[in-house]
Amino acid sequence: MIQVGILGAAGLSGQELLQRLAGHPEAEVRVATSTKFQHQGIHEAFPFLPESSLIFSGHDADLSECDVVFLAVPNKASLEYTPKLLEQGIRVIDLSGVYRIRDIKIFEESYALKHSSPELLQEAVFGLPEYFRSSLSDARLVANPGCYPTGALLGILPFGDLLESLDRPPIIDAKSGVSGAGGRVEDDATNYVEVNENFKAYKAFKHQHQPEIKQYLEDLSPFESKTIGEPVFTPYLLPLSRGILSGIYLHFNRRINESEIEERFNAFSEENPFIQIMPKGQFPDLRSTVHSNRCAIGWASDSSGSQWLVQTSIDNLVKGASGQAIQNMNLIFGFTETSGLT
Amino acid sequence: MIQVGILGAAGLSGQELLQRLAGHPEAEVRVATSTKFQHQGIHEAFPFLPESSLIFSGHDADLSECDVVFLAVPNKASLEYTPKLLEQGIRVIDLSGVYRIRDIKIFEESYALKHSSPELLQEAVFGLPEYFRSSLSDARLVANPGCYPTGALLGILPFGDLLESLDRPPIIDAKSGVSGAGGRVEDDATNYVEVNENFKAYKAFKHQHQPEIKQYLEDLSPFESKTIGEPVFTPYLLPLSRGILSGIYLHFNRRINESEIEERFNAFSEENPFIQIMPKGQFPDLRSTVHSNRCAIGWASDSSGSQWLVQTSIDNLVKGASGQAIQNMNLIFGFTETSGLT
Amino acid sequence: MIQVGILGAAGLSGQELLQRLAGHPEAEVRVATSTKFQHQGIHEAFPFLPESSLIFSGHDADLSECDVVFLAVPNKASLEYTPKLLEQGIRVIDLSGVYRIRDIKIFEESYALKHSSPELLQEAVFGLPEYFRSSLSDARLVANPGCYPTGALLGILPFGDLLESLDRPPIIDAKSGVSGAGGRVEDDATNYVEVNENFKAYKAFKHQHQPEIKQYLEDLSPFESKTIGEPVFTPYLLPLSRGILSGIYLHFNRRINESEIEERFNAFSEENPFIQIMPKGQFPDLRSTVHSNRCAIGWASDSSGSQWLVQTSIDNLVKGASGQAIQNMNLIFGFTETSGLT
Amino acid sequence: MIQVGILGAAGLSGQELLQRLAGHPEAEVRVATSTKFQHQGIHEAFPFLPESSLIFSGHDADLSECDVVFLAVPNKASLEYTPKLLEQGIRVIDLSGVYRIRDIKIFEESYALKHSSPELLQEAVFGLPEYFRSSLSDARLVANPGCYPTGALLGILPFGDLLESLDRPPIIDAKSGVSGAGGRVEDDATNYVEVNENFKAYKAFKHQHQPEIKQYLEDLSPFESKTIGEPVFTPYLLPLSRGILSGIYLHFNRRINESEIEERFNAFSEENPFIQIMPKGQFPDLRSTVHSNRCAIGWASDSSGSQWLVQTSIDNLVKGASGQAIQNMNLIFGFTETSGLT
Repeated sequence: MIQVGILGAAGLSGQELLQRLAGHPEAEVRVATSTKFQHQGIHEAFPFLPESSLIFSGHDADLSECDVVFLAVPNKASLEYTPKLLEQGIRVIDLSGVYRIRDIKIFEESYALKHSSPELLQEAVFGLPEYFRSSLSDARLVANPGCYPTGALLGILPFGDLLESLDRPPIIDAKSGVSGAGGRVEDDATNYVEVNENFKAYKAFKHQHQPEIKQYLEDLSPFESKTIGEPVFTPYLLPLSRGILSGIYLHFNRRINESEIEERFNAFSEENPFIQIMPKGQFPDLRSTVHSNRCAIGWASDSSGSQWLVQTSIDNLVKGASGQAIQNMNLIFGFTETSGLT
Repeated sequence: MIQVGILGAAGLSGQELLQRLAGHPEAEVRVATSTKFQHQGIHEAFPFLPESSLIFSGHDADLSECDVVFLAVPNKASLEYTPKLLEQGIRVIDLSGVYRIRDIKIFEESYALKHSSPELLQEAVFGLPEYFRSSLSDARLVANPGCYPTGALLGILPFGDLLESLDRPPIIDAKSGVSGAGGRVEDDATNYVEVNENFKAYKAFKHQHQPEIKQYLEDLSPFESKTIGEPVFTPYLLPLSRGILSGIYLHFNRRINESEIEERFNAFSEENPFIQIMPKGQFPDLRSTVHSNRCAIGWASDSSGSQWLVQTSIDNLVKGASGQAIQNMNLIFGFTETSGLT
Repeated sequence: MIQVGILGAAGLSGQELLQRLAGHPEAEVRVATSTKFQHQGIHEAFPFLPESSLIFSGHDADLSECDVVFLAVPNKASLEYTPKLLEQGIRVIDLSGVYRIRDIKIFEESYALKHSSPELLQEAVFGLPEYFRSSLSDARLVANPGCYPTGALLGILPFGDLLESLDRPPIIDAKSGVSGAGGRVEDDATNYVEVNENFKAYKAFKHQHQPEIKQYLEDLSPFESKTIGEPVFTPYLLPLSRGILSGIYLHFNRRINESEIEERFNAFSEENPFIQIMPKGQFPDLRSTVHSNRCAIGWASDSSGSQWLVQTSIDNLVKGASGQAIQNMNLIFGFTETSGLT
Repeated sequence: MIQVGILGAAGLSGQELLQRLAGHPEAEVRVATSTKFQHQGIHEAFPFLPESSLIFSGHDADLSECDVVFLAVPNKASLEYTPKLLEQGIRVIDLSGVYRIRDIKIFEESYALKHSSPELLQEAVFGLPEYFRSSLSDARLVANPGCYPTGALLGILPFGDLLESLDRPPIIDAKSGVSGAGGRVEDDATNYVEVNENFKAYKAFKHQHQPEIKQYLEDLSPFESKTIGEPVFTPYLLPLSRGILSGIYLHFNRRINESEIEERFNAFSEENPFIQIMPKGQFPDLRSTVHSNRCAIGWASDSSGSQWLVQTSIDNLVKGASGQAIQNMNLIFGFTETSGLT
């Protein structure tokens, strides 16, 4: 039984971690911090969480007995806590955005934040298990992927070496529920009266997840040039609580056969427990993945075979955040990959 | 005061026509038909409609005193009624899809329906006033545009001769509220429990509005080749009642200057009372157009100037159906274009 | 053409006032204040508002040319502005809660606020036109009713002298959309993720609208004792934007005949342009009144004839706030009661 | 491992049974029927259900190997299947309404249906474990309670002998999500555009759950007269998918002390694993019970101590249907009461 700490345990991602770890056979939450709920029992504060004797601590909680700490705190706080925890020999799974982008200049522009521990950027493992499973087994620091990049990368990367035949960078038109997009848009954007019966794009061409998508598309391209160009990324706020549905347009400079794609996606699903491929001709809806750690993927092409559309569906708080974080923990410690997640 | 008939007046488009015509200074609804509500007063059946002595008639109502009839009925019924009404010298504004596509073969494939009056296809005027205003002034038969084509065409056509520099057909990723998409998707697709907290694409690459968009893009391209290719069109069902937000991706084979676009859009707005251009750098949301006959348009480009994103927002029941139909009526009869619509 | 000022014009009630006054034939908005939007055009800030040259002013705007000022500001600000405006000879229609409750002690307990102009409490006319129409014609200060009291009083008061036969105070179980209840519940209560797919009661037995309901039930009881007791009032937050549906339980110490009730309600509707009585056996839904100034009322009784249920439906921002405020303005200045409201 | 059959397994209650039984340690679904999905795998038809080799059968499936069958079918079908299953020695847990009301005349009036097996009415055990736990241990036929009665009875019955001091029958103002109320209201009542941004009461004074509430209130009243009168029951349709929140008004002929109530509710919670009492002064929201088998209860009184308000929250598909049905199965077979339910 490993001992787990959660910093920022009362936020939406933190609650999701608490709920899922409560049912994990090999991990036990020892410390859960929250400034707002300090000294309250977690079941008292959130009656839908299982009964437990765990009490929320303040942010100065003693984490020294923890084997791993999840950081579900703002970017700035992650920069502050991560080096200290690593020094104590505690592994860190960071749900913030600060250890994902290697290029400091791009990071600082995208996040409007000075990076205080650039030396950790080379070490951090990007926690997308479908592509970094082997590196995760002894990672000290995991940069848990952004919710949008998770949905985008899992729809594009299975194309593998075919991506060399793209004649344009991918276009990602991604629609997110409020629990995902909320924290990242402007003030009162998540007020009920603003969101309800409404829908809109925000930060097109300038969202901080665009360089994250670009970097890992290029890192993982299995062809020499590794050049994919600037993906076009447009996020939207949907009037619902959970889920990200990404419509991804890929245009190739030649016909790609359906059977070739089908094989790749089926192989991808067989190798990865949380990848679900839709029956041919069907697209996933959000309902099919909400509250699960799955990424559901559907695809179609036009009659020329050069224009492809991929649709991916994830729960932004599960595969897009806390579920994937637990999947990463399982891989670090050699547990069954799906423990606590089904 | 012209006399108006509405066939299918109790459906969502019909209700919208009744409500807006009640406040029209030069038109009076004489006949409103509904099988379901036959013999009921319209205010009794729909208390939010203004008080009136009008009673719903059955579908065999006498329309001979009408100057114009709006058809808000299924495709098949439009095919049946339209020729009879024209024979009686009554003008027809048809909200169904049967007089929009000129190519019979494409029509029959898209609608899975035999066309019984192909001779009218040449005569029908496409009721997009921003582009067919002059032809509408003496139209006998108006094919009121589809909701999705309205949102797509008004975002693309203002680029004018620049469209010759597109290096790919436009990609239209269009999200519709349930009142618009409902009738066109599969059974129980509009049941509350199906739609609520859900979101999904449907009929990508095979929606019947794709050929409509293609035909009018090509008809209206102000350059010789008139070749734009197959627009990529993906519709989605949003968990809200009204509105269509279309994300349109245009990729050019060269840099296009922002100022050039700004001028075109501003001119477009000045010439057309219902076109609203968003301040630079802003995209419209659905709320800004719901319950109005406006089409709000915002745009942005990447740093290369070759990749453009246009966002258009309309109310599918107003500018995407009944409002535009009344705008067409106003132009046919020489009324102020905005009468009954503000 | 009277000149109108609106303090707090960018809030939800303020926007509703701007929208409706834009179409008013005898009133013109001269000043509209907003700290947040100061110096912006109202159409720029809120594109769904009609085009206009009006610019938001700061809260120190010059109101001296106004004939009437609507206060759509917090309670404290109303206490501050009202006496100053009255001194300048400007009429005030106050949408806050500070001039509704005559008993200072009850006011101060309910609002946790010291009253700084108690002398105005005797003068203020309660702006429920259905019961105070004649007093409104020369009112200097109108206390516009609360949204919940409007829905409750209009469902109970038509029973008139029958209320003497109540054997228990009325029970009012009132469900409000977020735009109404929002401002009055606890922090982040109106965050989308909190409200969506959720429903709950709040402040039962201790909401500040309970004494307002009680006072006017007693003031307006047409029988000597004027004793009705403490109405039981439970408000709830509904996951929708607009509307209040109130379920009102009245238990009498004897059978009351349906015909007697029907007559009273029909008479009430005939005397009052915004009262709509549902056909027998039907209850109103929220949709039937949203965006209108109507109060729709339905009723039923058990087989004993002693237990009655009344359901009232209003739009909290219209009949429950800004629409009713304009109705009051119309009555003060002798305009048609429905001007700007249909 | 007992063998389970589910008739009507593809409806909302059936899906909930499939999902929860998939994780049950002592029960295995052997047969699941659905006319619509016959021959499809349950995971194929509903991707959010766990992977399984189970295929939907038609309604003529062989159930002879089942130890217990859940009937999640319409009332008429329950009347047809139940006697046949019992004859075969198979236990039946019936989620329809046909074995709940003992008085045939009242049943037939309420359900507009002739009862074909009245002899079973005496034998059927009402599956509200909190009150019928001991009778369930050898029940052949369980009448699973209605969703509204579950929420109402669990809020009222804990008052126990105090109910003798009621001076009026309880008033139950109950608001249900669409998955609960849907099947029971009129045509298209569950269409998205009808329900969204709307709210209304239906069938007040005449809902078929009123006599069910009355019968069990009286059966379980621990005082001689057993007379409680006609409970007043008003159901409403909420614009959300799941959950029933019931506001229950109880008026006593004397002051009841809070401490007395607190003790009773706390004892009730200690004796029953799915009863959750809210901290003093707090009311439950729907979120706190959705997707759980809990019934959360909060209460308050006015200053006189004679007027009480109880709020109960359940998930209509879990504690109000399928969860409670599994709880009943657990008790019949002597399994841990909470198996498969946490």
